[in-house]
Amino acid sequence: MAYRDEKLSEEKVFKDPVHRYIHIRDRVIWDLIGTSEFQRLRRIKQLGTTYLTFHGAEHSRFSHSLGVYEIVRRIIENFKGHPNWDEDERLVCLAAALLHDLGHGPFSHSFEKVFDLDHEDYTREIILGDTQVNKILRKVDPGFPQKVADVIHKTYSNKLVVSLISSQIDADRMDYLQRDAYFTGVSYGHFDMERILRVMRPMEEQVVIKESGMHAVEDYIMSRYQMYWQVYFHPVTRSAEVILTKILHRAKELYHSDFKFKLEPRHFKSFFEKKVSLEDYLKLDENVAFYYFHIWQEEDDAILSDLCRRFVDRDLYKYIEFNPGNQYRELMDLKECFIEAGIDPTYYLEVDSSSDLPYDFYRPGEEEERLPIHLMMPNGDFKELSRQSDIVEAISGKKRTDHKLYYAEDLIEQLPQDSELKQRILEILQG
Amino acid sequence: MAYRDEKLSEEKVFKDPVHRYIHIRDRVIWDLIGTSEFQRLRRIKQLGTTYLTFHGAEHSRFSHSLGVYEIVRRIIENFKGHPNWDEDERLVCLAAALLHDLGHGPFSHSFEKVFDLDHEDYTREIILGDTQVNKILRKVDPGFPQKVADVIHKTYSNKLVVSLISSQIDADRMDYLQRDAYFTGVSYGHFDMERILRVMRPMEEQVVIKESGMHAVEDYIMSRYQMYWQVYFHPVTRSAEVILTKILHRAKELYHSDFKFKLEPRHFKSFFEKKVSLEDYLKLDENVAFYYFHIWQEEDDAILSDLCRRFVDRDLYKYIEFNPGNQYRELMDLKECFIEAGIDPTYYLEVDSSSDLPYDFYRPGEEEERLPIHLMMPNGDFKELSRQSDIVEAISGKKRTDHKLYYAEDLIEQLPQDSELKQRILEILQG
Amino acid sequence: MAYRDEKLSEEKVFKDPVHRYIHIRDRVIWDLIGTSEFQRLRRIKQLGTTYLTFHGAEHSRFSHSLGVYEIVRRIIENFKGHPNWDEDERLVCLAAALLHDLGHGPFSHSFEKVFDLDHEDYTREIILGDTQVNKILRKVDPGFPQKVADVIHKTYSNKLVVSLISSQIDADRMDYLQRDAYFTGVSYGHFDMERILRVMRPMEEQVVIKESGMHAVEDYIMSRYQMYWQVYFHPVTRSAEVILTKILHRAKELYHSDFKFKLEPRHFKSFFEKKVSLEDYLKLDENVAFYYFHIWQEEDDAILSDLCRRFVDRDLYKYIEFNPGNQYRELMDLKECFIEAGIDPTYYLEVDSSSDLPYDFYRPGEEEERLPIHLMMPNGDFKELSRQSDIVEAISGKKRTDHKLYYAEDLIEQLPQDSELKQRILEILQG
Amino acid sequence: MAYRDEKLSEEKVFKDPVHRYIHIRDRVIWDLIGTSEFQRLRRIKQLGTTYLTFHGAEHSRFSHSLGVYEIVRRIIENFKGHPNWDEDERLVCLAAALLHDLGHGPFSHSFEKVFDLDHEDYTREIILGDTQVNKILRKVDPGFPQKVADVIHKTYSNKLVVSLISSQIDADRMDYLQRDAYFTGVSYGHFDMERILRVMRPMEEQVVIKESGMHAVEDYIMSRYQMYWQVYFHPVTRSAEVILTKILHRAKELYHSDFKFKLEPRHFKSFFEKKVSLEDYLKLDENVAFYYFHIWQEEDDAILSDLCRRFVDRDLYKYIEFNPGNQYRELMDLKECFIEAGIDPTYYLEVDSSSDLPYDFYRPGEEEERLPIHLMMPNGDFKELSRQSDIVEAISGKKRTDHKLYYAEDLIEQLPQDSELKQRILEILQG
Repeated sequence: MAYRDEKLSEEKVFKDPVHRYIHIRDRVIWDLIGTSEFQRLRRIKQLGTTYLTFHGAEHSRFSHSLGVYEIVRRIIENFKGHPNWDEDERLVCLAAALLHDLGHGPFSHSFEKVFDLDHEDYTREIILGDTQVNKILRKVDPGFPQKVADVIHKTYSNKLVVSLISSQIDADRMDYLQRDAYFTGVSYGHFDMERILRVMRPMEEQVVIKESGMHAVEDYIMSRYQMYWQVYFHPVTRSAEVILTKILHRAKELYHSDFKFKLEPRHFKSFFEKKVSLEDYLKLDENVAFYYFHIWQEEDDAILSDLCRRFVDRDLYKYIEFNPGNQYRELMDLKECFIEAGIDPTYYLEVDSSSDLPYDFYRPGEEEERLPIHLMMPNGDFKELSRQSDIVEAISGKKRTDHKLYYAEDLIEQLPQDSELKQRILEILQG
Repeated sequence: MAYRDEKLSEEKVFKDPVHRYIHIRDRVIWDLIGTSEFQRLRRIKQLGTTYLTFHGAEHSRFSHSLGVYEIVRRIIENFKGHPNWDEDERLVCLAAALLHDLGHGPFSHSFEKVFDLDHEDYTREIILGDTQVNKILRKVDPGFPQKVADVIHKTYSNKLVVSLISSQIDADRMDYLQRDAYFTGVSYGHFDMERILRVMRPMEEQVVIKESGMHAVEDYIMSRYQMYWQVYFHPVTRSAEVILTKILHRAKELYHSDFKFKLEPRHFKSFFEKKVSLEDYLKLDENVAFYYFHIWQEEDDAILSDLCRRFVDRDLYKYIEFNPGNQYRELMDLKECFIEAGIDPTYYLEVDSSSDLPYDFYRPGEEEERLPIHLMMPNGDFKELSRQSDIVEAISGKKRTDHKLYYAEDLIEQLPQDSELKQRILEILQG
Repeated sequence: MAYRDEKLSEEKVFKDPVHRYIHIRDRVIWDLIGTSEFQRLRRIKQLGTTYLTFHGAEHSRFSHSLGVYEIVRRIIENFKGHPNWDEDERLVCLAAALLHDLGHGPFSHSFEKVFDLDHEDYTREIILGDTQVNKILRKVDPGFPQKVADVIHKTYSNKLVVSLISSQIDADRMDYLQRDAYFTGVSYGHFDMERILRVMRPMEEQVVIKESGMHAVEDYIMSRYQMYWQVYFHPVTRSAEVILTKILHRAKELYHSDFKFKLEPRHFKSFFEKKVSLEDYLKLDENVAFYYFHIWQEEDDAILSDLCRRFVDRDLYKYIEFNPGNQYRELMDLKECFIEAGIDPTYYLEVDSSSDLPYDFYRPGEEEERLPIHLMMPNGDFKELSRQSDIVEAISGKKRTDHKLYYAEDLIEQLPQDSELKQRILEILQG
Repeated sequence: MAYRDEKLSEEKVFKDPVHRYIHIRDRVIWDLIGTSEFQRLRRIKQLGTTYLTFHGAEHSRFSHSLGVYEIVRRIIENFKGHPNWDEDERLVCLAAALLHDLGHGPFSHSFEKVFDLDHEDYTREIILGDTQVNKILRKVDPGFPQKVADVIHKTYSNKLVVSLISSQIDADRMDYLQRDAYFTGVSYGHFDMERILRVMRPMEEQVVIKESGMHAVEDYIMSRYQMYWQVYFHPVTRSAEVILTKILHRAKELYHSDFKFKLEPRHFKSFFEKKVSLEDYLKLDENVAFYYFHIWQEEDDAILSDLCRRFVDRDLYKYIEFNPGNQYRELMDLKECFIEAGIDPTYYLEVDSSSDLPYDFYRPGEEEERLPIHLMMPNGDFKELSRQSDIVEAISGKKRTDHKLYYAEDLIEQLPQDSELKQRILEILQG
């Protein structure tokens, strides 16, 4: 039997708290899960620094990846026999679902920003490069790795397949909303996925939703909205990320200065030098990164050491509402005061903004475009969701932004009690 | 106001997936949570290697500790005003609940075995030694650290207080059963804690249960039984633990030989040398340990490198039922065959046994004794649980043991296909 | 001890699937639950004919009433000690919560429409009239029944008390949304009530919500929106209600004609004659009503008998979208066709409309006004919810209406296959 | 296409709180649900008088029947393609599952006892007699009704089919345990059905369980045990049943005396006369029965009227532990005292016993025998469950009995305060 068609002698199941069971029948999928590149995802947290806000959010990208696989598996099980569904696409769908996040590194957000990386590039490299994953995919067919990469990169010819993993209601989002809600324990993030799976229909270019399932989709959009503002953009999480980013900046800066690290930052070297090989990349998981944050506490640079202590011990920055647009002057004043007080504003002061578009119809050319959701009306016509749903229409295209100013409160408190400088700083901070 | 009585200006809450919310009112508790020693628990997994079996089990001892605190808080809130309850014991209860696992190190089970450590000693040291935790406890009262340590060590004079945290139905167990069930996703581990809390009554020597709540307690005992056999003693988890233990053994052995580590195992040195200071101990969390397993893959010792690769990539040993009692000869034969085949049986073959006593009445002198459960009958008498409950009686005192033999199947498979040696090994393994 | 202050020797609890436990401490509340008028609520379904659509929706107003009581109990437990909260109002709050639906009759919606009744009048009568409930309330204080009635009637002087039971986020709604979701099994209807209870603050005129709880309130508003359209206005439920209404109309019409009922409709007599005494009203619960629908199947009037059979056997009308505003002519045509075909359109054809305002700020003079929701901002100011929440703003004040035409499809199908009349009817129905 | 193979053009689903969705594809099943005999099950509560103890337990046999159908549907979907499974048995399985409780009357337990009926006889009569159900079944095949009846009666030749609906781990029990737990809200009754369904294997004579699923089965047995003692045998429920039984006895007695009912008890006549036709039987649902309990409050017999009031208003009998075996003399004394006090002991005093065998291996000849559970060991052998499971072995075959004495406490209280008679009664009751 061809490798691509091989089934396990007995179905394997993973117990999953979100989907109850994850079912594996295909040898290819089973083998992919066993690779070191996929197992590495156990050492990358799904939500980065969020566990410092919601202590339950300690789950990894490993379980999320299994979840996305399982959802896609269920969707295409329902598609079986439908004229628009080509059963030959099954394996590429499953593999792409499983591997879509393979290139994520530790604390992706901060690392990508500081070191100018893109995890999607690494996903592609791992799939196409000299890896265990690639070997397995090539056993299916020499062209198979490219196909999987194309699906993840949204350039695959069959757009229906792409839409399973990348659209405004794809398996990726359906898994992470539920999973992140489960592990954080928030009561948002729940929607009736079973219903949504039942009303999904394969069309030539994308998955559409039978109109009778519109309310379940509304609920999903609202979940997404709530999760963004309640969990993903939580200011405490962002405070930890600010510090993390500062650590990376500082270490990089020191590396390029004449500073001598007590212990050579081996795993970081190629990151600092902007020539990260695939091998280097794969070695730097969150455990390794965290090891460095540990030992850098003992380095002789006061700022690096202090920032690392803050991150490790969760001694985070305080924050206030702050709009850099119309408070530019206050920000400049504050920076000056910090300098005067001997507190480096580059590291101890930061404006961070988050914004989200809870649902949007297609705007060609935008960076993070995902396909909009189409309803299939009883008469067979299609309608873009926001034209049919009052609620979705109401929030559609409305970008909301939240600006915060983060700062090391303790350093300000340590200034002499009645110093004028301290008073000035506090005045600016208290508006 | 005395520090011990200080309340936060506004109650703080942690969102917790198991107890919904964890409520903090006391400044002392809040300050303890902020210490670096307590934050360190975020870097120690609650269930060690279990996440390699149940991928959801990535939660830390940090969240468990908060959970135990919360349960104790709720119990003693119910006790308020009861003649047997001394409200002055409140803070020591809460602190002991929060801190009871403070001394756990990475993968406690394996580390304690190989390095001959006891996490309870470290809990005491952290509480009594030169730590942030100790500073805070001393602010309450110079004798307060000792009190907290005594409660955890079960030597505290007020046995009722001890029983909240260490008995057969204490807050520790009630939290971990529910929490571990939640994160693994298994359907066992649920019982009606709210009911149990409602029927707990403080007696002089321990907490007792109103007889009307007996069925809820039966359910709890059954949950415990199921969790042990379904989760805690899962053979795949134990397989990972076997490998982990072998890694530590090998590294220690190499250290004491004339092997030269490429990178000095700084954090392990004092462990290898059996002179672990509190500072050393606190530095070695699971991130750091994992860092070494990573880099040891590159060390020049084939066994250490291979074992580390297995652990990191989850390439575990297979297992079969094996009773070393009556299969001693087979075990000896197998070891010989392994040696003949060039596979070191010290590292690639291991018998592991687990056993559990789901419920037991008090047997003085036993190692892990916990107080038995007493029911308060409608007439005010007390009865030990197993005398009243058929089910508990049925399983009471019955120790069940499970023996498994773990081995590196791949190494055997690599032996020449038709070699007699391979045949012999397979025959023994297949019984 | 005064009756109003009497506590039960031991707290009583009801196991409740929605709130887990309902706790009763006050003798007054316990005694009220034991009255025949309150027990009668067990024989009135909470959701009328909805069980014919969602088979789980067989729960009664009895359990809802307990639920509202429990929520109010929890709210005012949180209020204890707050300067705006008068602990003397406690008992009137609890009693009003428990009794707020006491006057509901069988299938309220249809009965009230056909017999021109208002359940609120009966609630008041039961509380003030010669009943077991009144006797108990009077034991508290001769003026106490009036106070309870005033709270339910929203004329009570303390508006804060009124708002607990009648506002846009009162205990009534919070219970029924969750309860109806639980029993129907739909995934909507869930929101984080525990959080909402924690952020409620008593103000002079109403309960307000701390701004930090806004998202939980948004979630609640969305739940309400979804429940209305997915459950409460479900067209199948309305189809059953159409038939029920027709039964009552027909029976009343026959009563006022010279038709001779085989079995005298004793329990309906005073309803038909529009002189319903309190005693009559209390006797006609859903079991009794259903008994008549049973036996009326055997009456000699073909229409009454057929309608009753339809209701009892759940042989409901079909429906189509139909806007009587712009399809008035079609409706007239259809009626004519029905008459021509010998099908009485008065009983076998009906337009039914449902509409809902998911959230509205206060509009004085409107019929069903409930107080809007106010947020308490960090600076102590108040803001009406829709000014702060994008989502609520988006749906605020937007009335949505759904029109359906219900008809007896089987009677049309029975017309001669190729009759022109049948064709005409089908054409109109198929638009 | 043959009627038996007809599929609905689109799958129908019922939203079910226990199984989430119930899926119907077969026209036969859909048509059976629409019959008046099946719809009648909506008017029979699943748990009789239990709603007077657990207010949520208002669910009907209708939803339970759908649930059993759904479980069987899922089981045999898993069996597809297995050599021991004959796909031709599919429809008879589904129909038997759906219809297995069709003959239940109102408050079965009490009615069957007083009127000497057996609901199983009526199930058979409804399936084989002149009913809508029979018409549909005959459309499948003239012999089909008999087949369905045989499966339910356990006389069907294919024992595997029988075991799906009647064994110690059948679809019937799996549904009712979960459903009754859900609606009462108790925390028992949960087990991992999904896992059990996955480990069920069809054998020639019965369904067996793969040994790896043993713990899930243990959990199920324990759920059953807990549900019996916590819910099904709850003394308050039994108190209501005692009164109900007394009502029926009294009414029957009066009917056979020269008592003149104000309103002729039409629906009860054939029950009193022991010649209940199928038509009579089907007409007497719980609504109708309740109607009589209502109006009998107005009859001129003090006992009948009082008993009905007690049942309708939930004014139940009190109870004490009482073993008629060794307290026979006390019982006789009590009866005498009652007579002396003018309280009829036939109606106001009753000993009621409940007993349960949580699990038993096969004992030929016993009345309510259900097949024991067999495990399929890894080597292909079978083992009866209690030989493999410590817990099940522990409770296996152990019959536990609970005796209670029920009495009208209020009548005793009304006796003159210091009468010797009252004292004597109270002494006996207080042991």
